[in-house]
Amino acid sequence: MIKITLDDVREMDRVDPLANCAKAFSLPDGVVYLDGNSLGAMPVAVPRRVEGLLRKEWRQSLVRGWTDHSWIDLPVRVGKRIAGLIGANEDEVVVSDSTSVNLHKLLVAALKLREGRSVVVSNQENFPTDLYIVQGLAWLLDDSISLRLVPTADIESAINEEVAVVMLTQVDYRTGAMLDIEALTDLAHQRGALVIWDLSHSAGAIDIDLGRADVDFAVGCGYKYLNGGPGAPAFLFVAKRHQDQAQSSLWGWFGHASPFEFDTGYQPSDGLARMQCGTPPILSLVALDTALDAFMGTEMKAIRAKSVALTDLFVELVDQSCQGFDLDLASPRQSVSRGSQVSLRHDEGYPIVQALIARGVIGDFRAPDILRFGFAPLYLRYENVWTAVETLREVMITRAWDSPEFRRRGVVT
Amino acid sequence: MIKITLDDVREMDRVDPLANCAKAFSLPDGVVYLDGNSLGAMPVAVPRRVEGLLRKEWRQSLVRGWTDHSWIDLPVRVGKRIAGLIGANEDEVVVSDSTSVNLHKLLVAALKLREGRSVVVSNQENFPTDLYIVQGLAWLLDDSISLRLVPTADIESAINEEVAVVMLTQVDYRTGAMLDIEALTDLAHQRGALVIWDLSHSAGAIDIDLGRADVDFAVGCGYKYLNGGPGAPAFLFVAKRHQDQAQSSLWGWFGHASPFEFDTGYQPSDGLARMQCGTPPILSLVALDTALDAFMGTEMKAIRAKSVALTDLFVELVDQSCQGFDLDLASPRQSVSRGSQVSLRHDEGYPIVQALIARGVIGDFRAPDILRFGFAPLYLRYENVWTAVETLREVMITRAWDSPEFRRRGVVT
Repeated sequence: MIKITLDDVREMDRVDPLANCAKAFSLPDGVVYLDGNSLGAMPVAVPRRVEGLLRKEWRQSLVRGWTDHSWIDLPVRVGKRIAGLIGANEDEVVVSDSTSVNLHKLLVAALKLREGRSVVVSNQENFPTDLYIVQGLAWLLDDSISLRLVPTADIESAINEEVAVVMLTQVDYRTGAMLDIEALTDLAHQRGALVIWDLSHSAGAIDIDLGRADVDFAVGCGYKYLNGGPGAPAFLFVAKRHQDQAQSSLWGWFGHASPFEFDTGYQPSDGLARMQCGTPPILSLVALDTALDAFMGTEMKAIRAKSVALTDLFVELVDQSCQGFDLDLASPRQSVSRGSQVSLRHDEGYPIVQALIARGVIGDFRAPDILRFGFAPLYLRYENVWTAVETLREVMITRAWDSPEFRRRGVVT
Repeated sequence: MIKITLDDVREMDRVDPLANCAKAFSLPDGVVYLDGNSLGAMPVAVPRRVEGLLRKEWRQSLVRGWTDHSWIDLPVRVGKRIAGLIGANEDEVVVSDSTSVNLHKLLVAALKLREGRSVVVSNQENFPTDLYIVQGLAWLLDDSISLRLVPTADIESAINEEVAVVMLTQVDYRTGAMLDIEALTDLAHQRGALVIWDLSHSAGAIDIDLGRADVDFAVGCGYKYLNGGPGAPAFLFVAKRHQDQAQSSLWGWFGHASPFEFDTGYQPSDGLARMQCGTPPILSLVALDTALDAFMGTEMKAIRAKSVALTDLFVELVDQSCQGFDLDLASPRQSVSRGSQVSLRHDEGYPIVQALIARGVIGDFRAPDILRFGFAPLYLRYENVWTAVETLREVMITRAWDSPEFRRRGVVT
């Protein structure tokens, strides 16, 4: 195998068609940020836009901001922009609430569309809050529905004629393993089930094509690769063909056909807008809207190409420089099965991650032994990957992690 | 009746113990803002605090902001502060989601605590989204629960042994009529029902005492008299005595006992924290947190006293100056039965409100004929009330409202 050099890596940066996108972000000096899969970096345009919202719109227009500055349309307008990033039609995505709450809405919608079937299939590797949402709904419905939780390998065999919904996350938050949306959606449909895909760990980094895959429903998070800021509102997708029938049970005035008629009876709006519920948090929505500007002028295929190149490079450099440290690759080696994330396993994963963070390489740790590194294609340079691996090598060679300072556990986020 | 003069009103401002509170807010020049019951005015401290969150916390600390800047505790910390404004204990209020979503959580909790009873009583005058939430839940539960919707006058007779929950809003959004929390809670309890109070149109303006009234559950909105900004997150209250049993069906990771263990099974946290669901919108939460600073050093009793004085003054000045214009008082004349709002009725209410707005007096209109004026005690001066009524008088005398410009309907918020 030919050794990769720093010069090679710098050449990758020199010819990177997305190199200019990093200018849209502001990162602290000396930091290699590999946790954009938890919380995306701050787009430089956000503070000014939010200040404008506060000082010009809220202060100046007061309640008339809802109309004069079109706050009221933000959930739909921002949804349209996200639609373009996940292969959906403009009228198939709306921004609203949190991922968990949106999942509840779509689960109810899907279960009602498949009345007579009562099982939700998911995998044990799914992000836990998704599973909790099913469990809470089952509790509410006196266990007339149930969660069938299986290892990823058994998803296919778990889908039988009892299954109403297959609910999966595209990219595994721990290992970065990526499921095949198209194949699994097709399988579910063949067996009469609907699908809900959670795109939280993929939207903004992977070239998703919900339309081509014929996906029924999807949710996703605004604060990871979409960079909307801490706790940014989430989005949800409903395929056009379901929009007239699909109905959440969270009936709120923002989903009403004529909210300002103040009728005592609920009348769902046409189309997707009915999936909104209460008044949306405008500050957070405006930040997310502004963050999406960073995607303008790029194609998701180019972003995914860089995601593959960044993660491939990381894997290759770890192979090259970190042999003999008991660091095992926890992610798929083939990029086609991997999101924009590479995870390693090590029994001392926790202090190793802390030692990396102390040196400005920010990844994170997931119990019991996962070191997680996310690669946000818009703001990472290939040389950042080089620096990260060199720093990892130094931490391992010097056993810098082996200190009480790094072993002390705080709250892990 | 002795005529009230501008000098009298100025004297009221001079001796107003809350006069200094207005400095905490920034309002446009020349505006008398009487719509703080829809969207509160901007506290001056908010832009700087939000900018700090963005430029110092998010940009600089990135994902570690959750711990280093305690974002993760914001729902509980801000809840504690709101608790002090509504007569609750510190550990009885948490900030989360929207009012509508929180109502869904508490309805489920209350219905589960009263299994065997299946009726939710509310009044036709309630804010519609509250009713929609019950209707959506009934739809989900195949009508095994139902909404019994009655005129306010019939609430008492509607509460029988079938009733699990009495769900009411303290202050009527249209008329400003205020219900007696203590009496109605007592009545519901006598008949074996639980209560859920919506404090959206009262928290921050009325001296609520949830503890003394023995209230079970409550929700409220962050963007009206609490001034948290457009779409600010909402709060919810669960009386201590219910916290070990009460359970929402929106099981999300922020309500889990150990969210960062990433268990596949939901385990509710102790106490109120379980009522959280997904990741909260930190930008909006920080704005709300900062907005609450404006309440520091005041007592809700003093705020309520000013609310009564402002609304009494408005009623008296309308009596004094607007006779013969067919403006009828839609609110209770006695302040004890009135929130911090006065509504008038007029067949031409819509264009009258528009003509007032064009002159800088911002109220709003609710179909079919309600002119709505909210009085936020923290930032309004008594002289603002004088100006508002003088402007109303001018609009009526000159028939300034009778123009196509003001009759044209936009979206009414």
